[in-house]
This record gives sequence, C-alpha cells and structure tokens, in this order.
Amino acid sequence: MLSKNEVIERLRSIVGEENVLVGDDINEEYTRDEALTVKPCLPEVVVKPGSTEEVAKILSLANEKRIPVTPRGGGTGLSGGCVAVSGGILLSLERMNRILEIDEENYVAIVEAGVVLADLYKAVEARGFYYPIYPGEESATIGGNVATNAGGMRAVKYGVTRHYVLGLEAILPTGEIMQTGGKYVKVSTGYDLAQLLVGSEGTLAVVTKVTLKLLRRPKAKTTLFAPFRNLSDGIRAVPAIFKSGVIPVTIEFLEKLGLNAMEDYTGKKVPISERVRDEAEAFLLIVIEGKSSEEAFGDAEFISDICMKHGAIDVFVPPTERAGRELLKLREKAFYAAKDGGATDLVDVVVPRGEIPNFVEQIHKMSAKYATIIAGAGHAGDGNIHLAIFEQDADKLSTILEEIYRVGKNLGGAISAEHGIGSEKRRFLLEMENKAKIELMRRIKKAFDPNNVLNPGKIF
Amino acid sequence: MLSKNEVIERLRSIVGEENVLVGDDINEEYTRDEALTVKPCLPEVVVKPGSTEEVAKILSLANEKRIPVTPRGGGTGLSGGCVAVSGGILLSLERMNRILEIDEENYVAIVEAGVVLADLYKAVEARGFYYPIYPGEESATIGGNVATNAGGMRAVKYGVTRHYVLGLEAILPTGEIMQTGGKYVKVSTGYDLAQLLVGSEGTLAVVTKVTLKLLRRPKAKTTLFAPFRNLSDGIRAVPAIFKSGVIPVTIEFLEKLGLNAMEDYTGKKVPISERVRDEAEAFLLIVIEGKSSEEAFGDAEFISDICMKHGAIDVFVPPTERAGRELLKLREKAFYAAKDGGATDLVDVVVPRGEIPNFVEQIHKMSAKYATIIAGAGHAGDGNIHLAIFEQDADKLSTILEEIYRVGKNLGGAISAEHGIGSEKRRFLLEMENKAKIELMRRIKKAFDPNNVLNPGKIF
Repeated sequence: MLSKNEVIERLRSIVGEENVLVGDDINEEYTRDEALTVKPCLPEVVVKPGSTEEVAKILSLANEKRIPVTPRGGGTGLSGGCVAVSGGILLSLERMNRILEIDEENYVAIVEAGVVLADLYKAVEARGFYYPIYPGEESATIGGNVATNAGGMRAVKYGVTRHYVLGLEAILPTGEIMQTGGKYVKVSTGYDLAQLLVGSEGTLAVVTKVTLKLLRRPKAKTTLFAPFRNLSDGIRAVPAIFKSGVIPVTIEFLEKLGLNAMEDYTGKKVPISERVRDEAEAFLLIVIEGKSSEEAFGDAEFISDICMKHGAIDVFVPPTERAGRELLKLREKAFYAAKDGGATDLVDVVVPRGEIPNFVEQIHKMSAKYATIIAGAGHAGDGNIHLAIFEQDADKLSTILEEIYRVGKNLGGAISAEHGIGSEKRRFLLEMENKAKIELMRRIKKAFDPNNVLNPGKIF
Repeated sequence: MLSKNEVIERLRSIVGEENVLVGDDINEEYTRDEALTVKPCLPEVVVKPGSTEEVAKILSLANEKRIPVTPRGGGTGLSGGCVAVSGGILLSLERMNRILEIDEENYVAIVEAGVVLADLYKAVEARGFYYPIYPGEESATIGGNVATNAGGMRAVKYGVTRHYVLGLEAILPTGEIMQTGGKYVKVSTGYDLAQLLVGSEGTLAVVTKVTLKLLRRPKAKTTLFAPFRNLSDGIRAVPAIFKSGVIPVTIEFLEKLGLNAMEDYTGKKVPISERVRDEAEAFLLIVIEGKSSEEAFGDAEFISDICMKHGAIDVFVPPTERAGRELLKLREKAFYAAKDGGATDLVDVVVPRGEIPNFVEQIHKMSAKYATIIAGAGHAGDGNIHLAIFEQDADKLSTILEEIYRVGKNLGGAISAEHGIGSEKRRFLLEMENKAKIELMRRIKKAFDPNNVLNPGKIF
C-alpha cells in the first residue's frame, strides 16, 4: 500500500508539481458545480493532466490503488456530476484545451476535452463553420457536454451533442487508451462505444479528445418574440409551425413570472408596449435561420402569421440581428435570474412536446397546492422544461420534486433532458427507474470499471 | 434437461403450433441472408412470435436451456447477421409487423420490429410525414435497420437510423422486457441503452418495438445527373457543393463499369448522349429537396453550376420527379446488378469523404495488381463506398478483402458503414480492431447476455 503522500508524489511525477493541488491550495470552485442543491466536497487532491498519456497513467495508478477519480470540465454542470463526493482525485481537464484540427474538407473538428465552448465557437466560425449545439453557458467544456449529452436551445433543428460526436478518444478506468469512431457519420463496425459514452457522466471512461461534426455557418438569422394571453395558445402554435415545413432553430416559451425575473436580473426589457405587457401571460421566442436574409425574413413572416392565427397578441421582430441576440441573451440568463432570485432547485424534465400544456397546468396546480413559487421556462420545440422552485423547506422541496418527476414520467417523459443525473437526481432515478434497467447499467459500468474507481456515487 | 422435442413443445405452447417450423418445413430462405459469401445454415427450429410477451418467454426458455437464438428481420442483410450459424432457434419477427401509432403532434411513429420499410414509408407518407432513412431494399424490416444502424442514400442530409431511434422496447436475453427512451430527442437520464442497441446486430437484446422520429414530408424534389471525365473531378465538386450551404439529400458516385452493369441489369439507359457516354468515366447523381419546387429548382441550378465549374461534361436534369426516381432506381439496383454479373463479394467500407479519390485510386491499383475486377459505386456525400469484387479464387478474394480493409482503415475509415460485421466480416474485425476494445465489447455483451445465447458467433 502507498500512503497518501506517496500517491501524491506519484501524481506529481506524472503531471508535474505545479499541476497537483492539495489542502489549502484547492480553490473552493473545485468543491462544487452550479447545482443549487449540491453540498461542497473537498477532494483529497486536484490533478491537472496535460495529455492523454498522463490521464492514462493517473487512471492506472488510481485503479491499482482503488482511489476514486472524479473527472471535471468547466464545473458548470447542474446535477453535481463533477463533484468529488467520494473524495480522492479530482481530475480537471482544464489544461487539455487545444483545438487540434479543423478539417475543412470533411467538416470535422478534433478537440481536446477541456476546450470551452466559447473557444470552439470562435475557432470554427472563423473558418466559416458552425457547431450548432448551444447549451447557453459558454464556459462549459466540450468534455462536460459529452458527459451530459448537452442539449440547449437549438435542439429543435439540430439535435443534441450526441448527434455531433463522430468519435472519441477515451481512457478506460483500467488505463487503456481507446479510439472510437472517426471522420464519418455512417458506421456499423461493432458496438458504438462513443455513443454509449455520450451521456454517461464520466462514469465509464475519461474522454480526452472529441471528433465533432461541423456544419456550414448559416448566412442569416431572424428572431421573433410573440406574446400570448395564455401559455396554451402559445404552445398550440408550435405544431402548426412544424406542419408548415419551416423548422426554426429555437422555439422557447416563457411565462410572465420568468420573464419578469430575467428582466430584473439583466436590467433589460423586452421591446413590448405596456398594453401588451399587461395582457400577456406567456411568450414564444423563435429563431429562424436561412440560406439568405430574404429566406430567413420570408420564413419569419410566415411563422408570424401562424402565431397570429393561434392567438398571439402581436409579433415583434427585432430590427437587427444584434437586437435579436439581446433577446436570446435575456433567455440565457434564466438560470442566473432564478438563482439570484432565491430559487432552491432547478428542474430539467423532458416530456413529449405535445404534453407541455398538460405538464405546465399540473405544475400550476402543484404550485397552488404547496403554496410554493414554481416558475417555468423551456424549450417548447423539444419538450424540455426548466422549472425554478422557490421552496426553503428541504422536506417539502423533496416532496415537490418527486411529484414533478412523477408527473413528467406519467406523461411519457424523463427526469433529465440535458443536465444529467449526477449525485443530485440519483435517488429519484433509483426510485422511478425499472430495476432490471438499473441492474443492467450497473453491469455495464462494471464492464468498464471493475473496481468502481471512476466517478463513484453518480447516476445510480 | 429437456429433450429437443420437449423444447419444441414448449415453443409451440408459447407461440402456437403454426408458428413453429422444424425440418423440411423450414424454407431455404431462413438459412441465409443476402451476403454473397454466406454459407447456408439450417436452424433447428424457426419460431415466429406474435407479441413482446412471447419473445420474452422464448428468450427465458432459451437462456435457461442455453439454446442459441438468432433474431431475424427481413433477411436482407449483407453480412450474415441473421443466419443461425450456431443452429438453435431462428427467431423471426415477421409476424410482429404492426404500425402501432403515428403521433401527429409529436412527430413520432411507434412500430413493431418486423414492420417492413415499404409499409412504414407508405403509412407515414399517407399522413404527410417522412421517414428519411432509405437503405434501398424496402423489404428490410425496421428491426433489421436498427440492428445494423442502416444508412443508405440520404445520410448526407438526414444521418442514419440511429438518429431517428428515440426509444426501443427490447427483450434481454434473460427474458426481462426493457423500455428505453420515449417521444423526445433530448435526454440525459442514465446510459442511453437504445443508442447502444442500435448497431449491435441482435447480440445484446431482441428489439420488439421502435419509437421513431418523423419529419414533415418535403414538398419538392429534383434530381441531377452529372457525367465527369474522371472520378477525381466529380469528387472534388462535392466539398464545393457543401460549401455553398445547400445540402443535397443524396450525392452518389458511379464509375462507368458500375453504370454499365446497372443499365444491363435493368434494361434501362441513363439519358445521356453517345458523345457524352464516350467521354465520361464517372458520374454524380444528386438529389435536392425543397420547401417548394421553386426552391428545389433554384438549388438544383446552383449545384449544376458548381458541377460545371468542376469539370462536369454536362448536367442532366430529368424533366419530371418520376424520371428522377427512375434514375435513382437504377442506382438502387447496383447490388443486384453486381450479383447478377457474378460478383463474389461486396465491400461496405467508409472513409472520411475527402479521402474517396485516394481510396478509389488505390483500389484501381489493387484491381490491376490482382488482375481482378473491382467495380465501385458509393455515397460520395458520406464516404461510404461499395465495391463489387469479381474474384472466384477464395484465397485471393480473402487477400484482396484484407488489403481493401487495410487501405480503408489507414485512411481513417472503418470496415463497415451500414451492413454490419455479422459472421462474414468477423475475422477482419478481430484482426484489425484494438484488442482492448474487443475485450470491452465482450464484457458489455456479457453484461447483457451472461450465457451467450443471443446471436452467438457474430461481430466478435
């Protein structure tokens, strides 16, 4: 057996002294992520590898000595997935932040797992490309996005992270370096291990490199903002939009409560008159892309008509792309606005999109029943609803959460659309998920990680 | 221990007498698929369940008695995946062919695994929807498509089967019924078992129901046929097309040899003049969809210009959609034309699409070196190349195949894009794939199927 000090010495010899932090050198940020409920946990050591080989050596050592390893990207997660709940090694991939290749012929980027989204967007856009997955928080890393199968506001048209992961380099908990996939979309050559790793929240392997599919950057974009007298009217416009054959990039819904909070938080106001503001209870925020500004504008007009036919009080089109971006930024601040306003938890349920009105109605009733504020906003195009819950009593909060998850599940939904299970939703998953499936997932975990060293205490 | 007769009695009691075939009642078709190299194998018994529960009972029995079970859809596979190489039970899902639901609000179809593509297309198109995955052979089942992650000619724009599978009902080899996914695209709730099952060739579980994402049916379609003096010119036009921002549905390339074979087989001729025919060595077949015929026509004109700028001798636009379909049908018959012409094997390699000219050049050299005819056609938009090899000598064929796979792999590709590994490419996979990955796949297999009863002898 090595002593703790000996392990730390070994880690220092692998990554260099300056990349191993212990005790007081460990910044508070490494003890948590952005989940509102997470209890801070101090890892015994923070290790920052600079290469695939270093990650492999760290995992070999950890596996040999049975030391828990928690992989960490940008720390922007919302379910405690990157928090070292079992102590041990916090493996921060922050130094592995190089964009290794942008292949203009094959429309592919190969990046290290620690690349933050802001850098990825900038690099590909400079070459005329587009990585369309936009979870909102640009300091998130691509590795973290892969771990949670991040979604975001553009899933309606473009899908989720999974759909852009063509291949991964990943290190098995036993230290082997594994390459999966490549610069192609079509493949049927054994189990698709890359797709299994996407969404596995760092419990099966540590992703070190990601091969991403890129698109061409769309030439034009238009934003619409449509206030409705009630949410049902707004939501009912959505299938009509889809039927038209125009697929927007984004269709977000907001309730009045949420919009007010975002306006207060950002100090900015959406450009609607006081009269409309008084009448409106719900809003749709719609983004359309086109091959040309004529096309985007034509489609926007078309969709405006559909909204008006479905009871929109009016439809506002920001006069410039920049003004449209401002509107979107307001929506992106929903989480921070809720946090700032004292929200105690944030829900990330998904239901079939046709069930949104039904789900929201049941949530309104629940809010009244428990005399608790529950503010909703969400991705109307894909059924993903985020609820900010303002409830101080921990037991009551727990009861409310369980009821929300049951409502979602009964409508054919799932507990998490894009934040993952992590440590924070684990008990709900264990309670609600089919037992045979949980057991199967545990056997798969064991196939990758026989000694349970990688991110223990997460998912199940 | 039960005797063979007792097992058959038990199977009869599960599915009914008329749905259990033994001995001479087993049609020759059940002994093979469409792979040119496959050796026919007679199963001990063919069982045709009519429901999920029946499948679960059959698997429980098989697991208990350690009887191999080979699941089978339409039998149109090209790698021996549904051939009962270990005898035992051939589990034909042909009776489970009901379209259970087309959900017009959520754009989802739920179908049994034995539904054939022709029926699926018809049912969804009648309701204004579109299931865009088109592998070509419409008697294939959706279950078979899931097993091989079927791709086809529209992957450029629409991706592959995996991208439309939102959820699965599957029976574990131990008999448990498992539901995964649902009517949503975005999910991050534990390992994505549905995505792991896609492409697992029936070795992990028997898929009984599939929840499929649907799109709206596009309103217009145009086809282009562009002859080039050589393949490199044609292939070089492809990235230029992508750069334009117009994404065609289909970009196929053909070499002269392949086109001649298809024309001979179908008795139909592509509409090009004798002069052009003499000059042309390679062809691109491009399909464009649009929201309106004006849009499709405009995009087609735009792409015609790009082809001409890249050395196309001319560009032919069939005057009607029907004439366009005829052209596509010619391409779809490539496999049957090759088979009819005496091809002894068909390769399904994928390479990064930018490597196609390089790959094809090396194949031409190989063809000369081995004095063997190797005719190529393929999906230029996604890097998937099908080669028909006309070589009678089995040892030489094997040497050629291995060399082709090595060339593909060295260019960053994979052995199979859409046909799967099955029994026929197993030895190549075992030889060329990383050993740690093979071992990991075997451990995953064991997590699902501890007694190795489900489709043994396939993939690895």
